[in-house]
Amino acid sequence: MSALTPLFAPRSVAVVGASRTPGKLGAALARSLDGFAAAGGRLALVNGRDGTMYPSLAAAAADGPVDLAMICVPAPACPGVLAEAVAVGVGAAVICAGGFAEAGGPGVGYQDELAAVVRDSGIRLLGPNTSGFLVPPRALTASFVPGAASVQAGRVAVVAASGGVNHALAFLLAEAGHGISLAVGLGNGVDVTAPDVLAHLATDASTGAVALHVESVADGPALVEAVATLVPHKAVVALVVGRNDVAEFAASHTGALATSWRITRAALAQAGAVLVDDERELVDAVGALSVTRAAPAVDPGVGVVTAQAGPGLLLLDELRGRCARVPALTEATQATLATLLPPLTFQRNPVDTGRPGPEFGAVLSAVSEDPRVDVIAGFALYEPDAVDLAAVVEEGRRTNVPVVLGVGGTGTDVLRCRADLISVGVAVATSPHGVAVASGAVLADARHRARIGGTPDPVEVSVAGPLDESQAKDLLDTLGIATMPRRACADRAEARAALAELGGPVAVKLLDATVLHKTEIGGVALGIRDSAELESALDALETAGACRFLVERMAPGGVDLVVGARRDAVFGPIVLVGLGGTTAEAVADVSVRLAPLTAGEAALMPAELAGRALLEGWRNGPSLDPAALGEVVARLGGVLAAAPDLAEIEVNPLRLTDDGLVALDAVVLHRKAADARPRQ
Amino acid sequence: MSALTPLFAPRSVAVVGASRTPGKLGAALARSLDGFAAAGGRLALVNGRDGTMYPSLAAAAADGPVDLAMICVPAPACPGVLAEAVAVGVGAAVICAGGFAEAGGPGVGYQDELAAVVRDSGIRLLGPNTSGFLVPPRALTASFVPGAASVQAGRVAVVAASGGVNHALAFLLAEAGHGISLAVGLGNGVDVTAPDVLAHLATDASTGAVALHVESVADGPALVEAVATLVPHKAVVALVVGRNDVAEFAASHTGALATSWRITRAALAQAGAVLVDDERELVDAVGALSVTRAAPAVDPGVGVVTAQAGPGLLLLDELRGRCARVPALTEATQATLATLLPPLTFQRNPVDTGRPGPEFGAVLSAVSEDPRVDVIAGFALYEPDAVDLAAVVEEGRRTNVPVVLGVGGTGTDVLRCRADLISVGVAVATSPHGVAVASGAVLADARHRARIGGTPDPVEVSVAGPLDESQAKDLLDTLGIATMPRRACADRAEARAALAELGGPVAVKLLDATVLHKTEIGGVALGIRDSAELESALDALETAGACRFLVERMAPGGVDLVVGARRDAVFGPIVLVGLGGTTAEAVADVSVRLAPLTAGEAALMPAELAGRALLEGWRNGPSLDPAALGEVVARLGGVLAAAPDLAEIEVNPLRLTDDGLVALDAVVLHRKAADARPRQ
Repeated sequence: MSALTPLFAPRSVAVVGASRTPGKLGAALARSLDGFAAAGGRLALVNGRDGTMYPSLAAAAADGPVDLAMICVPAPACPGVLAEAVAVGVGAAVICAGGFAEAGGPGVGYQDELAAVVRDSGIRLLGPNTSGFLVPPRALTASFVPGAASVQAGRVAVVAASGGVNHALAFLLAEAGHGISLAVGLGNGVDVTAPDVLAHLATDASTGAVALHVESVADGPALVEAVATLVPHKAVVALVVGRNDVAEFAASHTGALATSWRITRAALAQAGAVLVDDERELVDAVGALSVTRAAPAVDPGVGVVTAQAGPGLLLLDELRGRCARVPALTEATQATLATLLPPLTFQRNPVDTGRPGPEFGAVLSAVSEDPRVDVIAGFALYEPDAVDLAAVVEEGRRTNVPVVLGVGGTGTDVLRCRADLISVGVAVATSPHGVAVASGAVLADARHRARIGGTPDPVEVSVAGPLDESQAKDLLDTLGIATMPRRACADRAEARAALAELGGPVAVKLLDATVLHKTEIGGVALGIRDSAELESALDALETAGACRFLVERMAPGGVDLVVGARRDAVFGPIVLVGLGGTTAEAVADVSVRLAPLTAGEAALMPAELAGRALLEGWRNGPSLDPAALGEVVARLGGVLAAAPDLAEIEVNPLRLTDDGLVALDAVVLHRKAADARPRQ
Repeated sequence: MSALTPLFAPRSVAVVGASRTPGKLGAALARSLDGFAAAGGRLALVNGRDGTMYPSLAAAAADGPVDLAMICVPAPACPGVLAEAVAVGVGAAVICAGGFAEAGGPGVGYQDELAAVVRDSGIRLLGPNTSGFLVPPRALTASFVPGAASVQAGRVAVVAASGGVNHALAFLLAEAGHGISLAVGLGNGVDVTAPDVLAHLATDASTGAVALHVESVADGPALVEAVATLVPHKAVVALVVGRNDVAEFAASHTGALATSWRITRAALAQAGAVLVDDERELVDAVGALSVTRAAPAVDPGVGVVTAQAGPGLLLLDELRGRCARVPALTEATQATLATLLPPLTFQRNPVDTGRPGPEFGAVLSAVSEDPRVDVIAGFALYEPDAVDLAAVVEEGRRTNVPVVLGVGGTGTDVLRCRADLISVGVAVATSPHGVAVASGAVLADARHRARIGGTPDPVEVSVAGPLDESQAKDLLDTLGIATMPRRACADRAEARAALAELGGPVAVKLLDATVLHKTEIGGVALGIRDSAELESALDALETAGACRFLVERMAPGGVDLVVGARRDAVFGPIVLVGLGGTTAEAVADVSVRLAPLTAGEAALMPAELAGRALLEGWRNGPSLDPAALGEVVARLGGVLAAAPDLAEIEVNPLRLTDDGLVALDAVVLHRKAADARPRQ
């Protein structure tokens, strides 16, 4: 029993605004609900102008309790009908109509009125501006889309921002042979939001995995918490819209402001969701994870088994592109394979069986028993004369290692073969690409579960501001983040003394907490070696407005990173890692996580950078210790999470040298200062 | 009649090594060919050990001519059977067996023997190491894969490197509702290669578009020529394997060396092929282009029409990610739409119809008549009560603007709706992503055809080498590529005079044609302003081994590019454009084309760079004129194409300044020098 039971498991449903005119929403909905009535649910049709129906919700409720009201009236009438539903004890309602916040104008007011009824009553409301939901295991089709009633029951739940996408995904899943436990489109989300539905699904035994479609996020922490709570029990696969600029059309769709695509993705992955790039990947991934999950593993390996080399090559190429590890099989496994396969084929991994044959199951089994293999990705054309794939795969399985098998072919026999495989717990696909997506998702899910759950080290810090660069670096020092020896100098005499003490070459900078872009105004001089150069540098800095100076020993060369922590309006504190330089910035090569986070989690960030090769001994340069970077990033994130008055900490650059990481510049902004800072 | 008529349009087929034992290749092939025999073709089964069959090819040929021999015997016996086929006048043969070059060892010799028979006789040979081909319009299934005979006839041709991929693609196309005109897997490609099949398809009226799967390329120019010849008549969509490192497994598959994925893709696109990233994209793209093509257009626009906002948002996001232009519709179109649609919906582009309704066809029609729209990308859930999609779309069409329509739904009615749409010339998909892929392909095809066909300006140049930097820049000067004022100096006195003449600041460099990495050995001093700095720089250069000096005025700041021309072993002269700096190098952000090429073609290259924002006025910096860069690149490519003794020209950096492009360093290598140069 969850808070959404009246919505998703009602015993009785009323359609307010039911109609007998084909093409009208109220007619389509009433017809969709025929199945619910046929299965023994109570269906009450309400229409004050149709003598064959109940004249009002109250009249319908007088004949017996109404759990769910499907409200099919125009937007201006909806608040009144919702209030009537509350009055007669209805537990939940769905409003399909558009014309609310997404339409602007008076619609905003109608939506506010709905929110007020919900707030005052506790009735659960789905929508408005949604095509509803479907619960095939209960024969409940609370949707006006005609084909929705034909979607079979199964183990995949769909939680979509949009009613249209909800149906599109349910249909794609059905076409791929997967049934649905619950599929819901949230629409404008006045009351019921994705976290609510995810919490409901935690209690739903029929759901094996969840497909989550996200357009915008109102409450970031609630979404993260809901995903993180669900993932240990059921896999979550997320498709986030908005990689590109779609804000104008999106605003017309739900009235919500665009959420950062990048941060939303990072937050969901950090909570344990598997990310995909499009609806078909979503279907492949969630379909597979509804059938099978791998044991949690930090760095799982995939065994590739193919009955044809060409498709196997496509599969391998795609797996490598997804950074899946394809380890060489053990000598023992290779010896076993040599007894099963002709000597001409490749048997190290990928394993090429030459053609599908009766030994295919034994080959899968041998590979799945290899200790280096956590997931199997296979492909075979459908050749029933040569082998009964479903039978040999089932007979051959001697481990719990998940198998994703692509079966190439066309016609009903092939569809049946794929269904048979699903029924024995083997994930299926139709193409090598689909196998790569599905097995990649199983791998990602295994990695996520091996990773999530640590407790970040607490950071106790109080930072009174504003801070100049030297004070910001003092903060880094207290956090154990390396800086170069430096002196904050109140005048030229102190600067001269600092040079003498530190030795050249040094950097000499304008020191002023109110100046955020020193370089741009000529406030930085580098490589100062002697008194003459110092005097000339100090002259220039004074011209730029400097009263105080920072003198700091120059760092050795290396590769520059940018790391920082700041606050996101939706998700709260976040940390960022990127490469230095304008190119990295222009290609937006950055990794993001929510803070606070463990150093272990932060250590995974550099591997996500497109330019990560620069950190891995590029041209005999230094190699990054990800753990060391993870410590730095986790501490920065910890500070921001612990100090609510801080807006941002940025270390730019954090230089990777042969001696490790060292912070060359640092900016710490308090909230007011940040608000005033011009954003680029 | 093409050279491959005996192979793909035989009147009679013999199966050598036919069998009646189920599971054997010779049995599967004989059974696959039943349909050919039933359709009136002559099928002769040959097996010396089966009294019910012909004892030999000669015996089969004695009863009537044999056009095509399907040779199903083990590798060692194949050369002999092929020779026998030649002896009895067979026109073409297919060898399915593996165990040739891909297996190494004696297989290499067997393959050489096959090649010798082909060379001496002119018989056309498909394979070895292929599962054959299918020609559904002729009921000809020359494949041992059982389901192949069930693939319906249609307008898509498949030309695949691998037999397995050929079948996998044919099946995926069939599942997507597309029929096949010819589907062939080339295997080891001893004789018949992709260019041969593409030339054959040019004569094949039943083919509307070609799906090309490429693993490695033996003859780059032949492939490019074949694609370029075909594209004006039929669209070509190419999937190239090998984005990631798959070389070891690939070598075991065909015995061929890996071809550069990047250069192969660039060459195919330049020839007019549409590139895709996976098999499903291939199916979407070639399926659409077999149904409809847009008129050639330099910068075509797409009109997005959706019956549900959520799927429309996914579609728009994906289209923008593919750099499809989604222009605002004209005022006139918007006025028309306002008469068709309720005021709540978004109507500028995308056009959101709210739900599919009877007006859907009129909306599509209005958008297709907008002069800014060259292709329509649409999506609707299947709602037959609301609208008969196929009917309204056909009725509403008043232009030749291609329509790609995604229809979301499941079940046979939906499949029929999609088939009906295809039959009236509308491309279909099952998901917003599929619509984006398909319409993106139609756009790319239109752009390619607007672009191809120009004649590069001839470059006449003779370059005697080796060249030092100053001489290399003299060459750039003759090509009209800007350089900074410079003096080549034979001694320190000339260097002093040069500084006096040019004025500071100058760069002073070691000048020696044999030194390729000046910077690394301390052979470059920058920003030299006065005599003191010059003397100190000259000292250092002499220490680094300099006898001669280049003194050159320093260039203004800007954004550094790398441009160059070199030779690829497979494709010949190529040109490259990338951004300067290690980050760009680490992320391999480079655009490639074959040379010679027109300046217009080369001008398209910078838009392909991930970091292109840096060239578009990044932070008030200079903006690139693509045409100017195109001139530079086309000239470099022209030189390499015209001077066969040149190995490479690299301008690194070519700096984008407020005053345009200027070459700051240049290396010209002749072929021997390049061979000796260490590669990174």
